[in-house]
Amino acid sequence: MHTGIADRSGFDELITVFQKILGVSFVFIDEESKNKYAHDETENLHFLPDIVLKPRTAEEISAIMKICNERKIPVTPRGAGTGLSGGALPNRGGVLISFERMNSIIEIDERNLQVTTEPGVITEVLQNAVKEKGLFYPPDPSSKGSCFIGGNIAENSGGPKAVKYGVVKDYVLNLEVVLPNGDIIWTGANVLKNATGYNLTQLMVGSEGTLGLVTKIVLKLIPHPKHDLLMLVPFNDLEKAGAAVSAIFRAGFTPSALELVEIDALKIVSSFVDSTVVPVSDDMQAHLIIELDGNHLDTLMSEMEKIAEVLTEFDCGEVFFADDAQQKAELWKLRRRAAEAVKLAGYTIEEDTVVPRAELPKLIRGVKELGKEYDFKAVCYGHAGDGNLHIRIKKEGSIYSLNNQDVIPALRALFKLVKSLGGTISGEHGIGLIQKEYMDIAFDETGMALMRGIKKAFDPNHILNCGKIFDLK
Amino acid sequence: MHTGIADRSGFDELITVFQKILGVSFVFIDEESKNKYAHDETENLHFLPDIVLKPRTAEEISAIMKICNERKIPVTPRGAGTGLSGGALPNRGGVLISFERMNSIIEIDERNLQVTTEPGVITEVLQNAVKEKGLFYPPDPSSKGSCFIGGNIAENSGGPKAVKYGVVKDYVLNLEVVLPNGDIIWTGANVLKNATGYNLTQLMVGSEGTLGLVTKIVLKLIPHPKHDLLMLVPFNDLEKAGAAVSAIFRAGFTPSALELVEIDALKIVSSFVDSTVVPVSDDMQAHLIIELDGNHLDTLMSEMEKIAEVLTEFDCGEVFFADDAQQKAELWKLRRRAAEAVKLAGYTIEEDTVVPRAELPKLIRGVKELGKEYDFKAVCYGHAGDGNLHIRIKKEGSIYSLNNQDVIPALRALFKLVKSLGGTISGEHGIGLIQKEYMDIAFDETGMALMRGIKKAFDPNHILNCGKIFDLK
Repeated sequence: MHTGIADRSGFDELITVFQKILGVSFVFIDEESKNKYAHDETENLHFLPDIVLKPRTAEEISAIMKICNERKIPVTPRGAGTGLSGGALPNRGGVLISFERMNSIIEIDERNLQVTTEPGVITEVLQNAVKEKGLFYPPDPSSKGSCFIGGNIAENSGGPKAVKYGVVKDYVLNLEVVLPNGDIIWTGANVLKNATGYNLTQLMVGSEGTLGLVTKIVLKLIPHPKHDLLMLVPFNDLEKAGAAVSAIFRAGFTPSALELVEIDALKIVSSFVDSTVVPVSDDMQAHLIIELDGNHLDTLMSEMEKIAEVLTEFDCGEVFFADDAQQKAELWKLRRRAAEAVKLAGYTIEEDTVVPRAELPKLIRGVKELGKEYDFKAVCYGHAGDGNLHIRIKKEGSIYSLNNQDVIPALRALFKLVKSLGGTISGEHGIGLIQKEYMDIAFDETGMALMRGIKKAFDPNHILNCGKIFDLK
Repeated sequence: MHTGIADRSGFDELITVFQKILGVSFVFIDEESKNKYAHDETENLHFLPDIVLKPRTAEEISAIMKICNERKIPVTPRGAGTGLSGGALPNRGGVLISFERMNSIIEIDERNLQVTTEPGVITEVLQNAVKEKGLFYPPDPSSKGSCFIGGNIAENSGGPKAVKYGVVKDYVLNLEVVLPNGDIIWTGANVLKNATGYNLTQLMVGSEGTLGLVTKIVLKLIPHPKHDLLMLVPFNDLEKAGAAVSAIFRAGFTPSALELVEIDALKIVSSFVDSTVVPVSDDMQAHLIIELDGNHLDTLMSEMEKIAEVLTEFDCGEVFFADDAQQKAELWKLRRRAAEAVKLAGYTIEEDTVVPRAELPKLIRGVKELGKEYDFKAVCYGHAGDGNLHIRIKKEGSIYSLNNQDVIPALRALFKLVKSLGGTISGEHGIGLIQKEYMDIAFDETGMALMRGIKKAFDPNHILNCGKIFDLK
């Protein structure tokens, strides 16, 4: 352990203390358990914890934190380990707290359209549970089938529906949080409007587990829309596809999803998932996937046609309407598995850039130019409707790691371009370990000092998930 | 001046310094100017500043703040002075910074559906300017014709449209802020999704001018809906009206406004505005005002009929549909001028409670019971759709003031009721000076310590709008 435990006898005593709190079955120091929690979905990172704890309640976590705070033992909170920036990795060793046992949906409040849940519930499980009551929790990261809702809070996750429905932060009403010193607070109230003190709720959302451990979550729900329509539109020109995105909104339409997949990514993923249903045009530079949802099918069909009309001005090919549930599922599979497919094809470095949506063509063009300058290949796909473009990069002969000087100059140039377009370095993946190298591009030293000051107000002993987002100074 | 200036010669020198920064025309120490900024729309509060400054740029404010920070001079930022919690009052004397000259809309970005504005623009002016381009900025506090957008940011304002479109925080993408030490930062980026560091933007929104001075604002816009429908529905029973509110959402509808006005308030305001167009039923306990908006008139009419069907289960009277623009305007006037009318009728204490919307009947019943117990009269109206109920209180023989022991026990009992229903003490007015007495009901000492820690990170010398939201300890 990096800090706090000077010798082996201190370590054994600590284990006994944790066993008293949790029971012997939920304290792990074996190599297999430690290895299991040493990585997430971020490429090539591996950090071993010294102890893995699996609490069931906020009170247990409070007791653990009191001890760790007193002894200055590093603590890393962890959801399902699906993160793409290393936020849940125990980079300083110490104690890892897994939320996997805190997996109950506490209450679906149909009168108030709210759900109260523990953090270890899988996002899709939560979505399905509320859908059975006719209710809708929209944020749906690609990992929705395996990620935890608590991790989504930590990273302020997005997903395809964000373009119409917003991201996680737009649904979080109130959080129960265990602070680094073990105190338990609620950050707000279970209300839709709140002008009562600083917005601690919104400060927690996206703070990547560095300010407190979220133990209960109150989310806003909305009525589930009754219908949706989906279409795939190929474009001869990547930049024109980007320009078409902006035109759709300008024409007064707000799709419930508006995704872009570049031809290179589409080819890779369509052979990967072996789709026969969806027509992929090899000679088209980009495809847009456009979904509309609502309660009136006639209205949706009329709007979809009007959108298709708008798109003809941008040199698009033949529009493919997904006719039934199977076609829709196939089309979404193509999009959702893009990251996995292109990663396997050697594009191991994923960036999560976001710009104002009309700047997408400039960003896409800039990526290609930077590729020539810095000798990398890049494929683009992502949530074009809200300007959130995932860029996957392959550089021959270079394996991705932190501090890889082969890629840092290229990524710095990319992020400076993003910043110059009014954007920033992460739209939905978070900073974690792998993007903090670039935080100086997003914030100057004054902004970083404010963040460090906030961190200090919450965690004066610097025990909770330190070294994520920024280094302490 | 309360601090910083020991003697008259120091004061004169300070004036000279400010005159050099702003020009002599924008530094005021005459009694008339000081009195003009000594009050806002909060009842019975009066605090004189020592100096009134009217800067034009962030750089001028930065220069002012550097001097005030060095000399520990209290600074109070002020928008249009329409606040209802005393947030813009110079309670510690010192320097008052008025944003009235920073009143330009900098850019309406039609490609990205964003507007960049200075803080001194009147909210309705901003709304009308973007509407001319077919765009919509929904948050519309009752004071929209006179309040500044900067003040709306400070208080996280709401208004009737919040029920469908959210509050100010849901539209703020990025802020330029002058910190208490004079440093200028941007809090985020001009993007719809952001997972890059702590959410400084959301921390600023609703912080009531205690963390920094907002000098530029980037807001998200949406396409303006083409049509709206409005109806007035009387109910025999106040609690049933409250229950009907929840039922509308449960049936899958999201009105663009859903307002409740209690009979006592409606009688007062309808004689106040002398309305002949809108039928007010004297024997009905409450009225709901329900608005739907969207792009398809047929769909709206069908939905409005279905909502009216839902309401018949709650013992409602005859529904009045506002047929034309004039009827709509008259009906909205009844609602928007309710606060002014009941205030003139002696209901001088306005509370801004908010609860989960299905708890409204319990809150309304509780208010009436507390009135008997504590000997006050109360009228209720407000944004029922999002559970935000304004309660105006009249207590015979008692004039409202801070620390008025005649009303504090009654208000404490009211806020404890609100808290027990899952709600909190302010939905959209903020805490300012007048609600901080009750903050211990919303947050325990741990939560308050976090807020003080955040305040210290931003304002270590405690010069900016101190004594608002909480006292420093």
